[in-house]
Amino acid sequence: MQVVLDYLKRNQARFVAELCNYLRFASVSAQPQHKKDLRACAEWLADHCRAIGLDAKICPTAGHPIVVAKTKKRNGGRDGTPHFMIYGHYDVQPPEPLDLWKSPPFEPRIVGRSIYARGSTDNKGQNFAHLKAVEAYLKTGTPLPCDLTFVIEGEEEVGSANLSKFLKSHRAKLKCDAVVVSDTGMPSPKHPALTYALRGIIAFEIKLLGPSRDLHSGVFGGAVDNPAMALSQLLARLRDKNGRVAIPGFYDDIAPLSKLEREQSAKFPIKESELQKLLGAPELFGERGFTAMERRSARPTFEINGLTSGYQGKGNKTIVPAWASAKITCRLVPNQNPARIRKLVCAHLKKICPPTVRMEIEAGHGAEAYLVSPTSQQARAALRALEKSFACKPILMREGGSIPIVNEFKKILGTDSLLLGLGLPDDNAHSTNEKFNLDCFAKGQAMSAHLWQELSRQAMT
Amino acid sequence: MQVVLDYLKRNQARFVAELCNYLRFASVSAQPQHKKDLRACAEWLADHCRAIGLDAKICPTAGHPIVVAKTKKRNGGRDGTPHFMIYGHYDVQPPEPLDLWKSPPFEPRIVGRSIYARGSTDNKGQNFAHLKAVEAYLKTGTPLPCDLTFVIEGEEEVGSANLSKFLKSHRAKLKCDAVVVSDTGMPSPKHPALTYALRGIIAFEIKLLGPSRDLHSGVFGGAVDNPAMALSQLLARLRDKNGRVAIPGFYDDIAPLSKLEREQSAKFPIKESELQKLLGAPELFGERGFTAMERRSARPTFEINGLTSGYQGKGNKTIVPAWASAKITCRLVPNQNPARIRKLVCAHLKKICPPTVRMEIEAGHGAEAYLVSPTSQQARAALRALEKSFACKPILMREGGSIPIVNEFKKILGTDSLLLGLGLPDDNAHSTNEKFNLDCFAKGQAMSAHLWQELSRQAMT
Repeated sequence: MQVVLDYLKRNQARFVAELCNYLRFASVSAQPQHKKDLRACAEWLADHCRAIGLDAKICPTAGHPIVVAKTKKRNGGRDGTPHFMIYGHYDVQPPEPLDLWKSPPFEPRIVGRSIYARGSTDNKGQNFAHLKAVEAYLKTGTPLPCDLTFVIEGEEEVGSANLSKFLKSHRAKLKCDAVVVSDTGMPSPKHPALTYALRGIIAFEIKLLGPSRDLHSGVFGGAVDNPAMALSQLLARLRDKNGRVAIPGFYDDIAPLSKLEREQSAKFPIKESELQKLLGAPELFGERGFTAMERRSARPTFEINGLTSGYQGKGNKTIVPAWASAKITCRLVPNQNPARIRKLVCAHLKKICPPTVRMEIEAGHGAEAYLVSPTSQQARAALRALEKSFACKPILMREGGSIPIVNEFKKILGTDSLLLGLGLPDDNAHSTNEKFNLDCFAKGQAMSAHLWQELSRQAMT
Repeated sequence: MQVVLDYLKRNQARFVAELCNYLRFASVSAQPQHKKDLRACAEWLADHCRAIGLDAKICPTAGHPIVVAKTKKRNGGRDGTPHFMIYGHYDVQPPEPLDLWKSPPFEPRIVGRSIYARGSTDNKGQNFAHLKAVEAYLKTGTPLPCDLTFVIEGEEEVGSANLSKFLKSHRAKLKCDAVVVSDTGMPSPKHPALTYALRGIIAFEIKLLGPSRDLHSGVFGGAVDNPAMALSQLLARLRDKNGRVAIPGFYDDIAPLSKLEREQSAKFPIKESELQKLLGAPELFGERGFTAMERRSARPTFEINGLTSGYQGKGNKTIVPAWASAKITCRLVPNQNPARIRKLVCAHLKKICPPTVRMEIEAGHGAEAYLVSPTSQQARAALRALEKSFACKPILMREGGSIPIVNEFKKILGTDSLLLGLGLPDDNAHSTNEKFNLDCFAKGQAMSAHLWQELSRQAMT
């Protein structure tokens, strides 16, 4: 094992240079113009997997391709060898607004112990750490105690619709003892974490249409409703003064937080005052009766991700805009059914939409929340691997993000996911100036190296 | 006089071709990148004025230049000759959104009796009609009964700040008996109109700032306020369910509409059902207790011209946006003081802005409303000119737009303005697919030719 860890230590500089190459692909899955960048990124990744000794192939889908890379079967395919899947994604969030980046999002820049680029923490840096751990085994001739399959997809940021189909049609080959996912976070490099719950999500866009075209606000203003005002008034009614989502039935199915969970959440090593400073907001705010940590991980939200209406250039344009739209995502928690919540939201919107505008609702992706036992044998094995590599006690936590595919792993493959995130709270995932900490990168590699030992030992006992 | 009218009739095709050249300049005053297009447009216009026999010059300002063109003094500069100013502007509104134009906004396209281009009705087509009338006098050797000065500026769409300074420093030379402005509308080619009142305006932008950057809505959503939601809730409170502006004191100074005015307004030849069809809105809406015609001309408004926040591209981006902003203009009516209203609005916004966001208010331009007697000698002369050229009875009306400079003409030169608009309700001023009716163009030229006779006769009696 030491030879593996030594190999990792010795090759950090090269690993960082390789990660830079990975980060140069503008693999923005939401934007059609980047289709060829996703293809190129998948090809680079498959080539890289082959170079380190894996069997790799690119599996086409109706959308962006999936890269699948496997270790050679350790036991000639005979039963008894544990098999783990490492899931990651090579697609990234849109980088806009570009002018707020201190350096171009697809030209990686290293400052101190951080590497800045879109996709650095979410998720290229994290899945690359696992690849490097496996490289260390293969290049030092150290036998792996298990079979490993990497599944690195290109549609995580747009709902992973085609990965589900892929899992269904490759169910037998992908059957495994656990799925390892490093796409979440840890409070600090001194607080490695195992995440045992994730929030679900529904995405949609509301568009209100008024006059058939932008109107002169002098000549016609006052005669018709203003769609931007109608939208503001519609949205305003969806959150009450206590920060609660004001949609009838929205909270119905949620199980209350247990005493144990609230205690664990209170132990989270970032204070509210520190969180506020980190986020740079004038003050924290949210659903009354819950801490910020609870609100951002264990409570649902109704979040406006974008507003668009009328004139947005310099100066003024005196119009009544023809339409106004809002992009929305609701984060959901365990027991909230995405389809039911979407139905409740749509029904309520239709009920309160005024007759002065016409409403269109475009449905986006949806996913259930995720919750597993934080005290299983596998969870304990993962905690040991974390402790060995980070040299400090890991914590258990819920996280507010959504990784819809973990529910599919459970449903289709019958397998739980181990969420071992390497992202830091200030990594700016989904924001501008996204970064990834190079210590987390290095310790993540060591964690992965230990993990296969710990998990295999547990699987075989 | 007949020789002037004959000249106009004979030269329509050429006039339209010349107007096309005028419309090809992308003279968008609000957008800094078009500075050179404004300069080029001013130069073309001055050259054109010289070509038809006027003394023309380009007067530089701190912003875009003003074109001034005069007839040679009829009476050797001796007193007694009436002097009229024709005011217009060669700058135009921004053309965005470009994808909604059926043909490029600065490539004029003629369909039937309409010419489509940004600036066609507002205001190039209208001021060009006056230039063509004067050309007809000068080219046929018909003596004008008065001296004329054209003042055609390049900053009307951004508040005319430098024109005021120009009026002050050229007060003596610009002293005149009336200012003629064709920058308003008429209900239909069968209903020429004299506008006796305009609305005022204040413009501003509200920006709410939350977290210091866009945040991942999964990882942090629920911990902080969402600036787009805060903005929606702020804006929502500024208009009540009866369509009234909900800012304390906003309506305080407005004189009620007289019985006579409400009767005149009711005679407006476009029915509410026709207006609704024209505007293409699901239904009409506005301040309860007033007709749509009253609401759009004689009542103030609070209008959102644009909303901007977060992600606006294709697909989803799951963020809590760092900020949200709204571009606003309020239309004001006679007796509402723009500075006082601006103060009321700002004070109210500050009062209701939640502590979870930081608010910035950027002030834009402002202007008072305008109201003159519809029964003066000059108004009657103008009505005669309208009737002669359009061959039907003109109407008197209030208009909802703002031409801030008419107040300056009154204050600085002591002169009333005659508002003789040639725009039609479906001309799409300030909107996409702006057009100008070629019959209005031709009849406007004849109206201008008659106007100098009627106004001079009145001035000399």
